[in-house]
Amino acid sequence: MKKLINKPENFVDEMIEGIILAHPDMVRTPGEDKRIMVRADAPRKDRVGIVTGGGSGHLPLFKGYVGAGLCSAVAIGNVFSSPSSDQIFQATKAVDGGAGVLYLYGNYGGDVFNFDLAADLAELEDIETLTVLGRDDVASQPKERSADRRGVAGIIFAYKAAGAAAERGDSLKEVAAAAEDIIENTATMGIGLSPTILPTTGKASFDLPDGEMEIGIGIHGEPGIHRGALETADEVAERLMRPLVEDLGLSSGDRIAVLVNGMGATPLEELYVLYRKVHRIAEELGLTVEKRYVGEYATSLEMAGASLSLLKLDDERLALLNAPASSPFFREG
Amino acid sequence: MKKLINKPENFVDEMIEGIILAHPDMVRTPGEDKRIMVRADAPRKDRVGIVTGGGSGHLPLFKGYVGAGLCSAVAIGNVFSSPSSDQIFQATKAVDGGAGVLYLYGNYGGDVFNFDLAADLAELEDIETLTVLGRDDVASQPKERSADRRGVAGIIFAYKAAGAAAERGDSLKEVAAAAEDIIENTATMGIGLSPTILPTTGKASFDLPDGEMEIGIGIHGEPGIHRGALETADEVAERLMRPLVEDLGLSSGDRIAVLVNGMGATPLEELYVLYRKVHRIAEELGLTVEKRYVGEYATSLEMAGASLSLLKLDDERLALLNAPASSPFFREG
Repeated sequence: MKKLINKPENFVDEMIEGIILAHPDMVRTPGEDKRIMVRADAPRKDRVGIVTGGGSGHLPLFKGYVGAGLCSAVAIGNVFSSPSSDQIFQATKAVDGGAGVLYLYGNYGGDVFNFDLAADLAELEDIETLTVLGRDDVASQPKERSADRRGVAGIIFAYKAAGAAAERGDSLKEVAAAAEDIIENTATMGIGLSPTILPTTGKASFDLPDGEMEIGIGIHGEPGIHRGALETADEVAERLMRPLVEDLGLSSGDRIAVLVNGMGATPLEELYVLYRKVHRIAEELGLTVEKRYVGEYATSLEMAGASLSLLKLDDERLALLNAPASSPFFREG
Repeated sequence: MKKLINKPENFVDEMIEGIILAHPDMVRTPGEDKRIMVRADAPRKDRVGIVTGGGSGHLPLFKGYVGAGLCSAVAIGNVFSSPSSDQIFQATKAVDGGAGVLYLYGNYGGDVFNFDLAADLAELEDIETLTVLGRDDVASQPKERSADRRGVAGIIFAYKAAGAAAERGDSLKEVAAAAEDIIENTATMGIGLSPTILPTTGKASFDLPDGEMEIGIGIHGEPGIHRGALETADEVAERLMRPLVEDLGLSSGDRIAVLVNGMGATPLEELYVLYRKVHRIAEELGLTVEKRYVGEYATSLEMAGASLSLLKLDDERLALLNAPASSPFFREG
């Protein structure tokens, strides 16, 4: 194991302590539990709050997207484990400014269970909540079962759009609709080249022989749709992009946002080599890339690999992406 | 080998093509040679130009720091290889706005040779140049030979300060003095946990058995000052920080900027665990952390490891760090 950590059981709390020490002006913990983080100026009166969360091990997801024009709060669990319903509820109370709270997070069983319980607790205190689930991973379910797909890196488009809608004063229903609209028009496909090593056990989270790749892999190592010998970056770009174009029904003249996301260990250089081919395929198909993000936005500790997310744009979606935003890990405008 | 690349010999050019396609509004290539990149608005009349460069494989270094309030141009070579003198000269001409050009890059033999040749070529065309070398790696030479030290991640402080000085209209001598002042007050120490795999050969750039660490390692795998069993993050933080505090002569009441830099494969989570301990040591010593940067700022492809840079601050240095800047990889203000 090649990890810069102390006791594995302290990994998550020490990482959070580091984030809070590094960014005191941008985030704070509302109470004793450091696993709940809110933007420094929360709660904001008459503005919809946005609470996200999930397991640790995906930085900048989730903690990195708490800030102006993004999420209002985050509750996180242990590595790859859901936060508790009480933590989510505490986060909810800390950001409720009277306009309701959107729960926006990835579609995983443990997270859904705990966020739903938190919604019940919030209702008892007259805090209105709505839920929108990230479910952009096209490899996890076919199109006709897209409601059951897992949520992966594409959720950052929804954070950005919902955050912008909340910032301008949209109602809870409107903020939820903006997030849902983004998610219905976002599709992601990943590729894994090496497994994640779990800090607590020092063991690989899944098995992937050297020199092989897995297309469609999830951010916790969930099985994909193809395993075989590692291909060239251009071939991989084709394998990632074609199913997304089909899934979103993209055709010549459409405008898109592109996210080439590193899973952790893959160098930024390789992400740009991938982006290059994605851009060329888009040109070939008559698609215009209006926004692009290349870097590490949702990782899986030190997994080598990448994911490609496409968002079909219209004027409203693009305006929401372009609105100002600022968090320790994300800046726009 | 687990690399998302095409033909290894095309790796650098395809990566550059990806960067240019992704950021057309921020950077451009002034001529046919894509390995020369300049900020979109270069040359800027009566403003000092800043040219940097070096080998590929260190993103965001060097290409990531070309933009407003940062470097004006970059010339890069193959992986871990210097650009040619002609490429540096072309970059120089492309950013010369009549106020002279600062060469600001890391102290490596091949780079020094080629930048010096380019300075001679520039002189023949009446472009005045001055040179400041990044030489912040305290493990590479003892204090009394600090002029011979290698340059590593700490150079980004100098980019930021020199870029701010150039932006506000300082003369070439003043911009060079600002960069030199930063470099004399910056010290860096690295730790490597796994080697880089060179794309052209598929071989590890150096040997480091699993479970071992090397303190003081260079960004090309140059030998460090201690090799042994991997220690805890807190112990590593002590090993990185104590020599820097001594080298800079820091004492209670001093103000510092901190850069915890990932070498490539080390997760952001671990960098924050390291930052946490660095911050605590600073507190213990009575040092105030006024600025901090945690993330990947200067990498070595997929090397696992990190480096710690400290900059001793005064009001002028802090003001230069806080001035606005914007490039595809760096934002301030």
